[in-house]
Amino acid sequence: MNHPNITELPSGIKWFKETEALWPGQAMSLQVTEVLHHEKSQFQDVLVFQSSNHGNVLVLDGVIQATERDECAYQEMIAHLPLNSHPNPKKVLVIGGGDGGVLREIVKHESVEEVTLVEIDEVVIKVSKKYLPSMAVGFQHPKVTVHVGDGFAYLRDNVGAYDVIITDSSDPVGPAESLFQESFFQLMRKSLREGGIVCTQGECQWLHLSIIKDVISNAKKMYPVVTYGWSSVPTYPSGQIGYVLCSTNSETNFRKPLRNLEEMKYYNTEVHAAAFALPQFTKKALGL
Amino acid sequence: MNHPNITELPSGIKWFKETEALWPGQAMSLQVTEVLHHEKSQFQDVLVFQSSNHGNVLVLDGVIQATERDECAYQEMIAHLPLNSHPNPKKVLVIGGGDGGVLREIVKHESVEEVTLVEIDEVVIKVSKKYLPSMAVGFQHPKVTVHVGDGFAYLRDNVGAYDVIITDSSDPVGPAESLFQESFFQLMRKSLREGGIVCTQGECQWLHLSIIKDVISNAKKMYPVVTYGWSSVPTYPSGQIGYVLCSTNSETNFRKPLRNLEEMKYYNTEVHAAAFALPQFTKKALGL
Repeated sequence: MNHPNITELPSGIKWFKETEALWPGQAMSLQVTEVLHHEKSQFQDVLVFQSSNHGNVLVLDGVIQATERDECAYQEMIAHLPLNSHPNPKKVLVIGGGDGGVLREIVKHESVEEVTLVEIDEVVIKVSKKYLPSMAVGFQHPKVTVHVGDGFAYLRDNVGAYDVIITDSSDPVGPAESLFQESFFQLMRKSLREGGIVCTQGECQWLHLSIIKDVISNAKKMYPVVTYGWSSVPTYPSGQIGYVLCSTNSETNFRKPLRNLEEMKYYNTEVHAAAFALPQFTKKALGL
Repeated sequence: MNHPNITELPSGIKWFKETEALWPGQAMSLQVTEVLHHEKSQFQDVLVFQSSNHGNVLVLDGVIQATERDECAYQEMIAHLPLNSHPNPKKVLVIGGGDGGVLREIVKHESVEEVTLVEIDEVVIKVSKKYLPSMAVGFQHPKVTVHVGDGFAYLRDNVGAYDVIITDSSDPVGPAESLFQESFFQLMRKSLREGGIVCTQGECQWLHLSIIKDVISNAKKMYPVVTYGWSSVPTYPSGQIGYVLCSTNSETNFRKPLRNLEEMKYYNTEVHAAAFALPQFTKKALGL
């Protein structure tokens, strides 16, 4: 099956080109060595290809989710920003994150006793285990439990259960659309224990300030501390991704990590603090 | 004249695709509305096009130099990182920077009395004045003098003259190659006044760590303080660009800006300080 985003040039070189209505007029391309997997799952178009310079690449509905070359920046930040802001995270929930990379990072925290991952699309887990082993290694840890199903339903069934909830979702079109809505932030709020913290994939400040503004303004209705951070991720649109962080504890200061972690690729405590230094146009638009 | 980087799809939509040996296997594309100018100057291929979503775009030898949408991040950072680290910058030299955007930023500093820009390619200045007026406005300021010519020769003729030297160059292939070499940093060193500071375009930490390492290690031979910072610039390769900062004053702390500037688009003092928080892989590779 040919993939609509992959074109073969007369030279025989193949390129994957990511175009999306959420970032009109710009497109990231990666050179393809081999298509490893392509199927339409119940929820989305799932593609994995081997690239010439970025390792294996996971693509959902035509949008790059992770490359082996730069996934460290995203996975480390979305995991360690919330976990290192919580004094003693024991129970952690991941919604989405079917590649396993966020699990790999979470289990590096000694305090963590249990991690549950709720992924709606089993196919993502399956292809990640096969083609993205450096991420999917996270599934092998004894502290990890996987639940295939809907995040909303899972949250409703697990009230007051978690210290940290991480939503590692795709963009707000397709299966992840509802994960940016107020009702989802309310459900997460109810599933937190006292002092609980939430971190969600927060899109790009160069492209999606109005989406981010809405998410933050909804979150502020129910969490006393809400902020926005970002990191470089070269293969995400405009080369970066943001994180919306919410705490139920009004004393939480996301800019001051409570612990360090050694031997990371991207993360360190300076990078943690610097993630919250926002460009002037972002500060102004978000009122942060 | 057709441009080799612009392709028209069967739908009639045109895309500019940036590919370069310095970032193999990845390519940024921008949708083209109209080619405004294309010529081979004495030094390089000069293209300006109107894009669908990024305003007008300047391209040299097939590489995006500036788009009206995100140029603020680069111009503000390469100007204000060094200028706000100097206690009293009066005389400033820009090497390269023919679009005028860095000039526009430098003249915002009240202490600055004279700015000289040395650009090797007159054609870049000409097309920027015509098609990038929001950047080229920098040329109109009464404190600015323009010199068309070679940066090396200019430095040799102007010893001990400048408080701050900013090298706003393209990549180390083509006309800018020599601007990354030790001999160039030596010449800049000699053209500085006491306490002088240098800031040069420092490539991308995700792509060019070995180039950056060489530049820094050469600079350390002659400047007591040398460091590396970075900012987001979505249309640069991998979505960011770095800055090599050197000071002749061992007391200089680049992380602590000495002044603020109001009404910037990207820059503020928090962003200034955060620019020097380096990902762990960069710290390790550069020994910073």
